[in-house]
Amino acid sequence: MTLDLDFHSTLYLIGLIAVFVFALTGALAAAKRELDILAFVFVGIVTGIGGGTIRDLLLRTDQIFWIADPNYLTVCIVASVMTYFFAHWVIKIDRILLWMDAAGIALFAVLGTSKALSYEVAPLIAILMGVISSTLGSAIRDLMIQVKLVIFEPEIYVTACLLGSLSYVVLSHFGINEVYNILLSSGAAFLLRVLAIELDLRFPS
Amino acid sequence: MTLDLDFHSTLYLIGLIAVFVFALTGALAAAKRELDILAFVFVGIVTGIGGGTIRDLLLRTDQIFWIADPNYLTVCIVASVMTYFFAHWVIKIDRILLWMDAAGIALFAVLGTSKALSYEVAPLIAILMGVISSTLGSAIRDLMIQVKLVIFEPEIYVTACLLGSLSYVVLSHFGINEVYNILLSSGAAFLLRVLAIELDLRFPS
Amino acid sequence: MTLDLDFHSTLYLIGLIAVFVFALTGALAAAKRELDILAFVFVGIVTGIGGGTIRDLLLRTDQIFWIADPNYLTVCIVASVMTYFFAHWVIKIDRILLWMDAAGIALFAVLGTSKALSYEVAPLIAILMGVISSTLGSAIRDLMIQVKLVIFEPEIYVTACLLGSLSYVVLSHFGINEVYNILLSSGAAFLLRVLAIELDLRFPS
Repeated sequence: MTLDLDFHSTLYLIGLIAVFVFALTGALAAAKRELDILAFVFVGIVTGIGGGTIRDLLLRTDQIFWIADPNYLTVCIVASVMTYFFAHWVIKIDRILLWMDAAGIALFAVLGTSKALSYEVAPLIAILMGVISSTLGSAIRDLMIQVKLVIFEPEIYVTACLLGSLSYVVLSHFGINEVYNILLSSGAAFLLRVLAIELDLRFPS
Repeated sequence: MTLDLDFHSTLYLIGLIAVFVFALTGALAAAKRELDILAFVFVGIVTGIGGGTIRDLLLRTDQIFWIADPNYLTVCIVASVMTYFFAHWVIKIDRILLWMDAAGIALFAVLGTSKALSYEVAPLIAILMGVISSTLGSAIRDLMIQVKLVIFEPEIYVTACLLGSLSYVVLSHFGINEVYNILLSSGAAFLLRVLAIELDLRFPS
Repeated sequence: MTLDLDFHSTLYLIGLIAVFVFALTGALAAAKRELDILAFVFVGIVTGIGGGTIRDLLLRTDQIFWIADPNYLTVCIVASVMTYFFAHWVIKIDRILLWMDAAGIALFAVLGTSKALSYEVAPLIAILMGVISSTLGSAIRDLMIQVKLVIFEPEIYVTACLLGSLSYVVLSHFGINEVYNILLSSGAAFLLRVLAIELDLRFPS
């Protein structure tokens, strides 16, 4: 019981950190375009919560996750304002950010798939929902900033999310314990993404 | 009865083919940008089901059509993967594709309008929903690929959809049989679009 | 009672005028790209009702506002067609349009916040909903026309909306009368925006 509570609190915390990192990458994109502070916050928010918002709209959840729990929005605003004032520092830790982003998309892919399955959708739909949750925030960011979409780069980015979602659906089908499934699936996605970053792996085009 | 069942099965099949063709045009756009296979699938999916998704979100349907029936998603993935491996063949049949796309948008315009009317919206809203269903998939495709939107070209593309939707609303107002209405209205939209393709008709700007 | 009815009729009328002006700015953007009349109407509609649509989708209102009341759509179409035929006249009154747009975004920010609060969301969420209602229409317009987003310009545009929304939430927290609150909050937002226009105030970047 305590363990279970701890697990869900940990997941929630990691989720908040993931949104924080997504928002950082959004605000950094705003920094490259020399936008003002409100634009930083705007892009930060959209990048942080965009993917999950589209997932929730498509699944017709009772409430969008960040409307139900405003902490997600607060986290996006804090990340954006921090980036505005300390962008030169934030850029210096960009390799750490890439790793944290890898953890973020890995977790979002798996949690998005899990949420979709709880709405009893088909496995294929659940996998797509995981990929949507983890990648569409950055897609909207790139559209707004009007640069080529990162998800279209041959970077093993969407692939890692797909691995996480697919793995979760398969393991869940075999009735594996939820905690192990989340750890294994997001671990696999994280590992693939980090390997791609460190070894500069790219998709054949 | 049998006839009626046949008619609805036929409509469903044509609908799937329409989504397939929309996805092909999306994947072909990805081919022009030399994207990787996952990007092909991504653009293919968005182009194939984007318009109908926005229609369903706006109408607040119980479930988005492709979540209720994953066949639509499967069809998009098959079309995208096929295009990835056989793009040079797919491009060769581009005139056939234009005709099939014409059939697709004609049908989607009419079915979108019909679905909207079943939610008891005003005629003007129903017409707009038809146009949204049939054209917004390609609009999202062009936004993501960052080229000028095809719906903004003076190509008698949106016009054909508008004709189909308008015709369906008018004939439906006069109580015409549903089967005849769908055939007549989508036939008119298809004819106008095909004439525009073959005679290179353009809208005065 | 009569006064109250008058107030709500007045608000409704101002709301329609605001949507009309938003649609004009959308159609004018289409004019600069030399699009055809259907594209004018398309961009006009999206600009006129885009922000409120996203607000309603996120809040999960029973019906999108312009589906419940097609007058908003009619107003967008009229504005767009007028702009198509009289663009050279409409451009001549662009300073008046800027002032009317200022009134429009001021009102939409406050009404969007008010609507969000009626769904019992957190104050922070309600403020964001006000900003979304008033600014996302122009954001979608700029995305479709593929120019730099106006909301990213350092123009005291989003700031004015934010002031209106924030002011409404604060005054509402202190239990001020709804009529006074709407007048005061949208008045403050309008004043800030008009000052920014007239004195060419800009945000430090």
